[in-house]
Amino acid sequence: MMSIQSQPAKERLVETAAHLFEMQGYYATGLNQILKESGSPKGSLYYYFPEGKEELACEAVNRTARDVEERIRDGLAKHDDPVLAIQSFVREMAMYFEASACTGGVPVAAVVLETASVSDPIREACASAYKAWIGVFTEKLRANGYEPSAAERLATVINSMIEGAVIVSRTRKSSSPLEAVAEVIPLLLRSP
Amino acid sequence: MMSIQSQPAKERLVETAAHLFEMQGYYATGLNQILKESGSPKGSLYYYFPEGKEELACEAVNRTARDVEERIRDGLAKHDDPVLAIQSFVREMAMYFEASACTGGVPVAAVVLETASVSDPIREACASAYKAWIGVFTEKLRANGYEPSAAERLATVINSMIEGAVIVSRTRKSSSPLEAVAEVIPLLLRSP
Repeated sequence: MMSIQSQPAKERLVETAAHLFEMQGYYATGLNQILKESGSPKGSLYYYFPEGKEELACEAVNRTARDVEERIRDGLAKHDDPVLAIQSFVREMAMYFEASACTGGVPVAAVVLETASVSDPIREACASAYKAWIGVFTEKLRANGYEPSAAERLATVINSMIEGAVIVSRTRKSSSPLEAVAEVIPLLLRSP
Repeated sequence: MMSIQSQPAKERLVETAAHLFEMQGYYATGLNQILKESGSPKGSLYYYFPEGKEELACEAVNRTARDVEERIRDGLAKHDDPVLAIQSFVREMAMYFEASACTGGVPVAAVVLETASVSDPIREACASAYKAWIGVFTEKLRANGYEPSAAERLATVINSMIEGAVIVSRTRKSSSPLEAVAEVIPLLLRSP
């Protein structure tokens, strides 16, 4: 069992790894950089993650998954109406992205694109992340009377379009793709 | 000026690099692997790409951009009606993805997510790729009477949702996110 004192050290490693993976991907992030930026002593990494980088990556993805899920949940709670809620959530993302000088990362995507062919544990952690995020959008839609299957389909699409738009926004250094997504939410969500 | 004989060698390098970058990302792909899989002699890489991996990556992205642009154009040409055209294009992608045992790559995305912070030339090549793909969707919509700004906005969203859906499909090893995208195209494209 871990001592209370040891918790922050492990947390720091996971948090630093999550940030670096998001900003530069899995392979560009060396264990030495994670140790250095988290201010952790050598040896702590294999102490907490005896199976090494893959194990750390799974933890980092799980942590990002929880953080993002909370951010989506908080965002969607700001308005009852799902169109308004999702639109303002996406616009807020666009705003934060602009505030980061258009250098904000894309949670999870780089890691899964790099490792999907070689690591089932990482791929599955990323699949759980997407599932959780889609789940929050689904809940919001169901709470507003959408049928279960329509809610899940729309939530899957909304998650995908945000994901893609952040990537293109980062590539262009402009939040216009995210703005475009916010703009079409009413089309997508009005009743058929 | 390059001799005619030397063209295929350069082409082989670019094609191999494009495939490997798509399947495993930029950093996991070593120059030695590119040389080996393309059957190129050592030295040929720096002969054709004196500036090294970054220069090769830009060429690989440009090549992928043209290939995908052509694929979108051919796909959308199959039906006059844009809803039908885009829906069947996305369904065909889902089919190909399933046929690849759900291991198909995502053009350009891994490379740009890994390098956006460190290489403007690669990032700009990727931005041109997205611009070209969005351009094909925009054209299709404009040819069907959509106003220029609406056409571009919808095209940007369609490109983003396909991009995101392929990533989530790959992560889940299931084409259901792509199927969901195909399903909502009519909602997105009917007149407001």
